[in-house]
Amino acid sequence: MMTGEEYRASLGDKRRIYFRGKVVEDVRKHPTFARQVDAAVRCYDRLHAQGSAVVEAFFTPPRSVEALRRRGEADLDILTRVSWTSAMTLLTAADRIESRRPQGAAIMRDYVRMLQEKDLRIVECITDAKGDRSLSPVKQADPDAYLRVVERRRDGVVIRGAKLHIALAPIAHEMMVIPTKAMKPGEEDYSIACAVAVDAPGVKIINVGSEAPGADPRDHPFAADGFASHGFVIFDDVFVPNERVFLDGETDCAAAFAHSLGLWIRADGLFGMADQADLLVGLAQLIAEANGLEKAAHVREKITDMILYATLVRSTLEASLAHCERMPDGTMLPNELYANAGKYLGAADYNLMIRHLHDIAGGSVQTAPSVLDVENPEIGPLILKYMEGKAGVGVEQRLKIFQAIRDLTLSPTGTYRTIAHLHGHRFSRVQSADAQ
Amino acid sequence: MMTGEEYRASLGDKRRIYFRGKVVEDVRKHPTFARQVDAAVRCYDRLHAQGSAVVEAFFTPPRSVEALRRRGEADLDILTRVSWTSAMTLLTAADRIESRRPQGAAIMRDYVRMLQEKDLRIVECITDAKGDRSLSPVKQADPDAYLRVVERRRDGVVIRGAKLHIALAPIAHEMMVIPTKAMKPGEEDYSIACAVAVDAPGVKIINVGSEAPGADPRDHPFAADGFASHGFVIFDDVFVPNERVFLDGETDCAAAFAHSLGLWIRADGLFGMADQADLLVGLAQLIAEANGLEKAAHVREKITDMILYATLVRSTLEASLAHCERMPDGTMLPNELYANAGKYLGAADYNLMIRHLHDIAGGSVQTAPSVLDVENPEIGPLILKYMEGKAGVGVEQRLKIFQAIRDLTLSPTGTYRTIAHLHGHRFSRVQSADAQ
Amino acid sequence: MMTGEEYRASLGDKRRIYFRGKVVEDVRKHPTFARQVDAAVRCYDRLHAQGSAVVEAFFTPPRSVEALRRRGEADLDILTRVSWTSAMTLLTAADRIESRRPQGAAIMRDYVRMLQEKDLRIVECITDAKGDRSLSPVKQADPDAYLRVVERRRDGVVIRGAKLHIALAPIAHEMMVIPTKAMKPGEEDYSIACAVAVDAPGVKIINVGSEAPGADPRDHPFAADGFASHGFVIFDDVFVPNERVFLDGETDCAAAFAHSLGLWIRADGLFGMADQADLLVGLAQLIAEANGLEKAAHVREKITDMILYATLVRSTLEASLAHCERMPDGTMLPNELYANAGKYLGAADYNLMIRHLHDIAGGSVQTAPSVLDVENPEIGPLILKYMEGKAGVGVEQRLKIFQAIRDLTLSPTGTYRTIAHLHGHRFSRVQSADAQ
Amino acid sequence: MMTGEEYRASLGDKRRIYFRGKVVEDVRKHPTFARQVDAAVRCYDRLHAQGSAVVEAFFTPPRSVEALRRRGEADLDILTRVSWTSAMTLLTAADRIESRRPQGAAIMRDYVRMLQEKDLRIVECITDAKGDRSLSPVKQADPDAYLRVVERRRDGVVIRGAKLHIALAPIAHEMMVIPTKAMKPGEEDYSIACAVAVDAPGVKIINVGSEAPGADPRDHPFAADGFASHGFVIFDDVFVPNERVFLDGETDCAAAFAHSLGLWIRADGLFGMADQADLLVGLAQLIAEANGLEKAAHVREKITDMILYATLVRSTLEASLAHCERMPDGTMLPNELYANAGKYLGAADYNLMIRHLHDIAGGSVQTAPSVLDVENPEIGPLILKYMEGKAGVGVEQRLKIFQAIRDLTLSPTGTYRTIAHLHGHRFSRVQSADAQ
Repeated sequence: MMTGEEYRASLGDKRRIYFRGKVVEDVRKHPTFARQVDAAVRCYDRLHAQGSAVVEAFFTPPRSVEALRRRGEADLDILTRVSWTSAMTLLTAADRIESRRPQGAAIMRDYVRMLQEKDLRIVECITDAKGDRSLSPVKQADPDAYLRVVERRRDGVVIRGAKLHIALAPIAHEMMVIPTKAMKPGEEDYSIACAVAVDAPGVKIINVGSEAPGADPRDHPFAADGFASHGFVIFDDVFVPNERVFLDGETDCAAAFAHSLGLWIRADGLFGMADQADLLVGLAQLIAEANGLEKAAHVREKITDMILYATLVRSTLEASLAHCERMPDGTMLPNELYANAGKYLGAADYNLMIRHLHDIAGGSVQTAPSVLDVENPEIGPLILKYMEGKAGVGVEQRLKIFQAIRDLTLSPTGTYRTIAHLHGHRFSRVQSADAQ
Repeated sequence: MMTGEEYRASLGDKRRIYFRGKVVEDVRKHPTFARQVDAAVRCYDRLHAQGSAVVEAFFTPPRSVEALRRRGEADLDILTRVSWTSAMTLLTAADRIESRRPQGAAIMRDYVRMLQEKDLRIVECITDAKGDRSLSPVKQADPDAYLRVVERRRDGVVIRGAKLHIALAPIAHEMMVIPTKAMKPGEEDYSIACAVAVDAPGVKIINVGSEAPGADPRDHPFAADGFASHGFVIFDDVFVPNERVFLDGETDCAAAFAHSLGLWIRADGLFGMADQADLLVGLAQLIAEANGLEKAAHVREKITDMILYATLVRSTLEASLAHCERMPDGTMLPNELYANAGKYLGAADYNLMIRHLHDIAGGSVQTAPSVLDVENPEIGPLILKYMEGKAGVGVEQRLKIFQAIRDLTLSPTGTYRTIAHLHGHRFSRVQSADAQ
Repeated sequence: MMTGEEYRASLGDKRRIYFRGKVVEDVRKHPTFARQVDAAVRCYDRLHAQGSAVVEAFFTPPRSVEALRRRGEADLDILTRVSWTSAMTLLTAADRIESRRPQGAAIMRDYVRMLQEKDLRIVECITDAKGDRSLSPVKQADPDAYLRVVERRRDGVVIRGAKLHIALAPIAHEMMVIPTKAMKPGEEDYSIACAVAVDAPGVKIINVGSEAPGADPRDHPFAADGFASHGFVIFDDVFVPNERVFLDGETDCAAAFAHSLGLWIRADGLFGMADQADLLVGLAQLIAEANGLEKAAHVREKITDMILYATLVRSTLEASLAHCERMPDGTMLPNELYANAGKYLGAADYNLMIRHLHDIAGGSVQTAPSVLDVENPEIGPLILKYMEGKAGVGVEQRLKIFQAIRDLTLSPTGTYRTIAHLHGHRFSRVQSADAQ
Repeated sequence: MMTGEEYRASLGDKRRIYFRGKVVEDVRKHPTFARQVDAAVRCYDRLHAQGSAVVEAFFTPPRSVEALRRRGEADLDILTRVSWTSAMTLLTAADRIESRRPQGAAIMRDYVRMLQEKDLRIVECITDAKGDRSLSPVKQADPDAYLRVVERRRDGVVIRGAKLHIALAPIAHEMMVIPTKAMKPGEEDYSIACAVAVDAPGVKIINVGSEAPGADPRDHPFAADGFASHGFVIFDDVFVPNERVFLDGETDCAAAFAHSLGLWIRADGLFGMADQADLLVGLAQLIAEANGLEKAAHVREKITDMILYATLVRSTLEASLAHCERMPDGTMLPNELYANAGKYLGAADYNLMIRHLHDIAGGSVQTAPSVLDVENPEIGPLILKYMEGKAGVGVEQRLKIFQAIRDLTLSPTGTYRTIAHLHGHRFSRVQSADAQ
């Protein structure tokens, strides 16, 4: 197992990262990425302190409802969580392609074992560029619109294409590259699944996420832990050696990867949705009290609506655990029907819940001054004077709640989270020690 | 009438503006404010080119449905629009307080004439700090929680308090300070309405809005024109001479100001809501076509939903114009019932429409690379290769649509607009020449 | 023009009406139909009193917004309203098929003139049996699943098929039979439009509507005027003489009929939707007051929601009138975009509004005793004692409101209206003198 | 245990039932009530066949999740179900008032034992007339607006008042009379809970439910089993002997009854809501297939919406069972938070789901002819010809589905169920043998 600092050291390789048109020389020192690296460092240390048995259990698929619940509720950063989802995806997909491509299944299991032993982090690369989305891969004007094998050598394959919406690649070690959809006969070159190191020659990561804009971290409690930059990863004729090729050409096996990923994202995502819903309710109640409006009828009605939403989302989580599905190898997965209903509801009404929260909080959710303003001796005392709300809450507490809501819902981090929520992805556990 | 450059020169006064804990020496040179100043400069020039008759008509309350519609559809920046709403508010409130405080009414009309003659810009200052929002002004622990008169002299009054959520004060000349609500007997000191110059001694403006974070303006087409910083304005014992005092102590007149402001915000805001709704529909259709998904059933369904929303909002605008209310002095105002229904619907479902738009656009709404990335010779051609969508649309057009949606809904400007929309405020006309 | 009694006499023909498996000998004496006949008699008398100019104007397509509004707001029973829609449909369709089948256009105009002169009532017959709805007419297992010409003679055609969901045929004189959809080459036999007398040999009307179940009419204020039985009309080889054949075989003209009908139903339906929405609001407010709950927060919130719905529906009506579309012949029709939005909203949220109304009214909407119970000397006084609500409303008024809500939403009449509303059809004007 | 016929014989007492202003001489022979009696007879026979152990278990509060689930899913008619809820209410309330009124608790337990031994059926009487609902009992113009004790004798009390919305009293043996709400000091006379026999002197039941209107039972598959007449029960100075008085004057105990009833209605109601939701989904899919429209995009979208609703409601049931609350005596009750969320959602969106079902089914849900029409030799064959839908479904099956939807949602039975659903009450199990 690596310590946090060993992890930090491991990022000093030849990765090609771009940000706003320039090459990022060292992600560990770049303002946009350093904070994410720090969050990952802290999680490495936390796991290191717990010992290798915990990590080993972590890389074993859950065989009971309790194990599944433990995993969903563990205090992990998002990089670790994505690594777990990726590893589970490979183990599940290995079972599914076993009969058709046994050597691929063996490679995948070995690869996961290697990840565990070296304590590496891996991210999911699935969505292709896709070109005209109404056309299949072979009908595209540009044959590279979907990632494909452009050359087959004795010792491996060369791949070309792009994968979009990739979270955290600049601070990870590995990338799991899998087909974005089921493939048909004739799409053999697109039926490619493999592992690629982040610093492999030909990999170019154009990063478009953005830190909170130059502001004091204290104004951004969620950004400190939860922000994930997202990238556009280009595979510009990247060589992949045979021992990293999971699938190559078996079109009927292509869907197994995306489907397995879906299972494990669902297994993880609903925990995050339920937590996020509770978080919104908590912030709404806190700010209503700080404003002295917790008894106003229209405020109570909105909070009731938020509680209903949170309860329904959690109901689906609980129902999906109560009726878990046991896979042939004993792995437990949340019941698909309940989990899908929960993820649909969680995404469909999330924006409305944020609207409720903004309505309850009032305009200061945008206009509350920053920590730096409060520290200015000339205006700080005046701000504290005029931001005082209900007696007993404390003006600094009230300011913190406003900052938290702003950071969670209106900052670049916040809108990133909203979109991720819409797609059913989750962040690290809300109550993380890091976020406090 | 001022030219744009004359306006720019007029900002070189002693105003006290703070941003992130520091004094802003000159708003015309500060990155956060310079762009807003530029937008205002352009609007000054546009109006100057149209001549004084246009401006004069502009400061005359609309006496016909056509005049009202012309005003709503005029191509103005947000600073000019706010100035118009403020001037109209004063003229309407003057009529209403005439019998109780004739000298106040006369002062208000003279003041509006002065604004017109000097071609000044004025912003609305209404919302107080409010402290515990369940308590009235006199019951607050801090008597300054609502702005009040702390001293009355022969030549004027001294006021103390704060006004929150104030848009654009750092680049305006004047502030219209009015009571936030109806006042009762015993609340005489809070029944104060007056005009204060932005650079008056004791005025401190803490600004919390933020430009789009350090990025290229080409990635932010809406921020270039539409962003309005918002401030926390402190009146730290500011002296107001009698000739600028509109109301002082007549509690029964206090509500006339906020109510008049409401009428004129409504008169203006619904035009903006209807335009904004159409803009969302247009972006949704454009990006669906660029992705090659405009015929997919789930996409068409969402766009239909958005069209329904836009049509309903515009129905209320048209119904409120068709049934305008004529005020005693001949001024025409939109029918209140229809306009209120429209503003409610427009705000209630706005977040859901944005969610639809994000759903239709897909993940690239967040992850599409920036203009600077495209200009990098190493990765630019690869980006253009992989961002190509449906044939015939053009990859640069597709990138622009993604940037527009991102800027309108996810950037700090975008979330500012969303919150403003929630409160029924509008931005300058969407199809402004500036925004192209 | 006919008087009411002349109309009543005109129904004594050989029409074949079936109800619950038996032939109805005389609709004027059958409990299910007599009340509808009575309502039509009253409307005939009302129009007769207004003189022939009114009826003549009525049969002229509206050439101005005012004429259109007058028509929409006229106090007519549903049979007359359907007759108007049918006549307008024929005149509009005549213009549209003129170039392709001039003799058909001439026949249609003569036919409408005859309707007007003889003061007859005509109903719309459009929906075919359709069989497997995923198949076209010629692909059906049974070629009669869509009504068709089975024989062409020198003096006319013989038609076979069924038309479904036909309102009021048992008490009308004529039926307008038109294609249910656009037709394609090969579907010549299905491209048939014509007029058929209700008592023509071979016509069989199976009626499935039902009166309010044997109860006192005073408990059913809406059923008294507004109930429309609906039928399943079978054309069992019915001969139609040439002078009643509008279209026969011109497939490219078939769509003109259904589209024209859509225009006129829309022109009429939105008035009804707006009135119905207002009616629901009024009943909600009345029963809230009668219960003493008009100030309860949850009741006010629901009524506000209902007012919003009613205002939005009416907004679309007003906007569609303000932006009327002038057809080539000068006829004014409501703007299609606004009207469609209104009808969508009106139908989509109607059930929710009824739910609000039931919630506000409470359980007595079902369990309030009947007029006959009140008249029973043993229990009547006890009912009046225990149904007393808020002082000042009067127990009998309160009972009437409960009965009205029950009849409008829960009785067979009520659910019939709900379904009709869903499909955009209207009833006679709510404030009809008959309904009082 | 009684057989069905013994139960039928037991109804031959002196009960005073009124319907449409007339006394019902014998409910067993009156068309409105006979069918309900028949359904109860069948359930008695079914239980009798299962033996006394089953009934004994039935009257023991559930001590495990499995027992709770078994109860929720048992195949019982609504009368038996209401009896169970009443008995459980009394046992739970007995525990709660034990310390304050031990003799009352003892009487309640004895009484439940008597119910079990004699195999009697009991209904819930809770809602008072209430007069002006904004006023408390003692402030009402009529002191009898809430049921109260008007005289206290050595051997019992005399009560006066009315209880509203009472289901099934005409065919039950006993009534559980309990306070409608918490009581305060000064409301001693209103703090009365007791048991009253249906045929006790002074009890008058005015019944307002109604059978399906004179139609063939085969057209009304749900009404046959599930319809519950509802009544207005008047207690016109009814003497209640001491051994039937549970509470008299202890105001602080009054709330225990209504709260206990709420617990058990919730325990039972959510099962019914989840079943009802599934039933709607099933009918929607069946009729879509019978119409040949199961693949149309708009139909699939609506069915998906209905499945989502059904899945969310069932999620809350499953979550409430997974997190059951154990009461001090070991009784298991569904988790309150999840169950309340489920009942809210179940009621809030029910009308919308019915609207979806009507939309999918099309107009024949109202206009499909009746069984009697089909049996008429003249028109029957024509109906079967024209009601034929998709090949393979069978026209009689299609007709049955239309009848089922009509009966479930549009008949008097159907609207009764809709309102009951809104209030969280349930019917007998949907898949009852009786209903087939």
